[in-house]
Amino acid sequence: MKEDIKVNCLRILRILSQADEPLSSREIAERLSTRGYPMSERTVRLYLARLDKEGFTKNLGKKGRLITELGKKEVEENSIFEKVSLLSSKIDRLTYLMTFDVHFKTGTVVINVSVMHHEVLKQNLEYIEAVFERGYGMGQLVTVFKAGETIGGITVPKDHIAVGTVCSVTLNGVLLHHGIPVTSLFGGLLELKSHKPYRFAEVIYYQGTSIDPLEVFIRSRMTDYSEAISSGNGKIGAGFREMPAESRSQVIEIAQRLEKVGLGGFMLIGWPDEPLLDIPVPAGQIGSVVIGGLNPIAIVEEKGHSVHSRALAALLDYERLFPYYKLKKYI
Amino acid sequence: MKEDIKVNCLRILRILSQADEPLSSREIAERLSTRGYPMSERTVRLYLARLDKEGFTKNLGKKGRLITELGKKEVEENSIFEKVSLLSSKIDRLTYLMTFDVHFKTGTVVINVSVMHHEVLKQNLEYIEAVFERGYGMGQLVTVFKAGETIGGITVPKDHIAVGTVCSVTLNGVLLHHGIPVTSLFGGLLELKSHKPYRFAEVIYYQGTSIDPLEVFIRSRMTDYSEAISSGNGKIGAGFREMPAESRSQVIEIAQRLEKVGLGGFMLIGWPDEPLLDIPVPAGQIGSVVIGGLNPIAIVEEKGHSVHSRALAALLDYERLFPYYKLKKYI
Repeated sequence: MKEDIKVNCLRILRILSQADEPLSSREIAERLSTRGYPMSERTVRLYLARLDKEGFTKNLGKKGRLITELGKKEVEENSIFEKVSLLSSKIDRLTYLMTFDVHFKTGTVVINVSVMHHEVLKQNLEYIEAVFERGYGMGQLVTVFKAGETIGGITVPKDHIAVGTVCSVTLNGVLLHHGIPVTSLFGGLLELKSHKPYRFAEVIYYQGTSIDPLEVFIRSRMTDYSEAISSGNGKIGAGFREMPAESRSQVIEIAQRLEKVGLGGFMLIGWPDEPLLDIPVPAGQIGSVVIGGLNPIAIVEEKGHSVHSRALAALLDYERLFPYYKLKKYI
Repeated sequence: MKEDIKVNCLRILRILSQADEPLSSREIAERLSTRGYPMSERTVRLYLARLDKEGFTKNLGKKGRLITELGKKEVEENSIFEKVSLLSSKIDRLTYLMTFDVHFKTGTVVINVSVMHHEVLKQNLEYIEAVFERGYGMGQLVTVFKAGETIGGITVPKDHIAVGTVCSVTLNGVLLHHGIPVTSLFGGLLELKSHKPYRFAEVIYYQGTSIDPLEVFIRSRMTDYSEAISSGNGKIGAGFREMPAESRSQVIEIAQRLEKVGLGGFMLIGWPDEPLLDIPVPAGQIGSVVIGGLNPIAIVEEKGHSVHSRALAALLDYERLFPYYKLKKYI
């Protein structure tokens, strides 16, 4: 089905699934209109004929249309079809799905995928490396996908290459596997002074956005990685997380372990009930600042090149990751 | 004082103001560090000497430093100095401050300010007009500020002109004056089909962002005004508001009145408890979709020109507004 037709069919099915009784095409048209989707009765009837044929609705004649079990299933399966999903729920889902075990160094991590022309990678490799060297990347590991490969629904076009960077949500997953619940508060634009975190210049809370905050800052050209890697007074992507105060020493231990396996991502770990970079934390919690996984690629966009980046794009086996300084083998 | 020095002084003052007793420079340095601002004891002492001199702190010798009443006042006055303020609180403040009366057509409205080169306005006037003509602007009114004029802290540079567009937060203010509480939920990228609202493609909740969502969509080049004004299948800025279900008929009446005075901004007004464009509303509320005030200017940026736009920039007397088709007198 074409997208438009599918969307309209689903809207009608949804209304039928919420009704306790059969509805006439006039009643359906009215309810569509109150939801902001005006449609003529005639159009509704055309869609209903199609839905009858597919077995999603049943024509009860004068009584109207009733949704079938198959129709209910269709609504259920497509319940997120039109909804804009918020970042916070995407983070929670991927945190749950990833399986990386920091002791055995096996399992999957969450990655971002950035597709760029082969030439763009070649020209900007030194900047990518510089961001990692300065410690503004999430750990030291990356991966690549060559032209023709498909990852997270993205197929790498001819003459292009996709670089996978580890997403800081991976930290959430590892902590969760140790029984530490993590709240991902916001993604922010972190101002640095002399290479040290200074303050959050802008913030976008994960619970309130359908776009990844760092993607926003990059596309809006608000970042300043060039200064970050040279004078140390720039603006980079970072996230804010909250954890139970009691878990602090365990978090530090896990952070050190992660560091050793190339997945270090904690910039700051605060103290119970103490604000961190002026961000207040709830009682009984500690705040922490984590590095934006997309940082090393973001500088390429800042330099004016076209990169198609998707945060939280896929899960990837840890084994497929390699140190960033081996990226040059692929150019 | 230079900004850096001021920020560091305030951080020290804040720590002193939260302590119940005098603190030594070592204690202050420790507390700064737990908040993510490591500073040497020596540096703390230098700042303290400065603070003593300004009368913000008192040196009690071995006991340490105590904050003075003047120091407490300084902390209070600068309490929002470093904090990133969220859009929702900015919206509430301006809603409270504006005074426009829809019956008497007097008082102030909330405006966005967009500064551009004089030539840019000249070249793009037809697009600005087209967005208004299609009804994608907030009402029909605009204003201009000439080179040298200052508005909302922005001074218009030489050869430049600032266009003021009415911000949709003005609708909140008018409803509030009629005793109708409005919750501004989110700013979104509204997909149009055949010139009609189709669905929100992206959303950013006002409660969770320090940047105006529409500014984000514009800068990220995610809008599509060109198609919106031609085929009617584009993407424009719009907001989502919630109001008490009981106020629906009064809201409609006020919306019509606003339309008459050139401040029409409601695209859709929903029904009690009914989702609007698939956005669910809480029980007892109605949803509504309002037009993004910056839309007519956003198209200029979409066309590739440099425009410096600030949403929610200032309050302006209604009398200073004029119909958009008179903009041509200023080019």
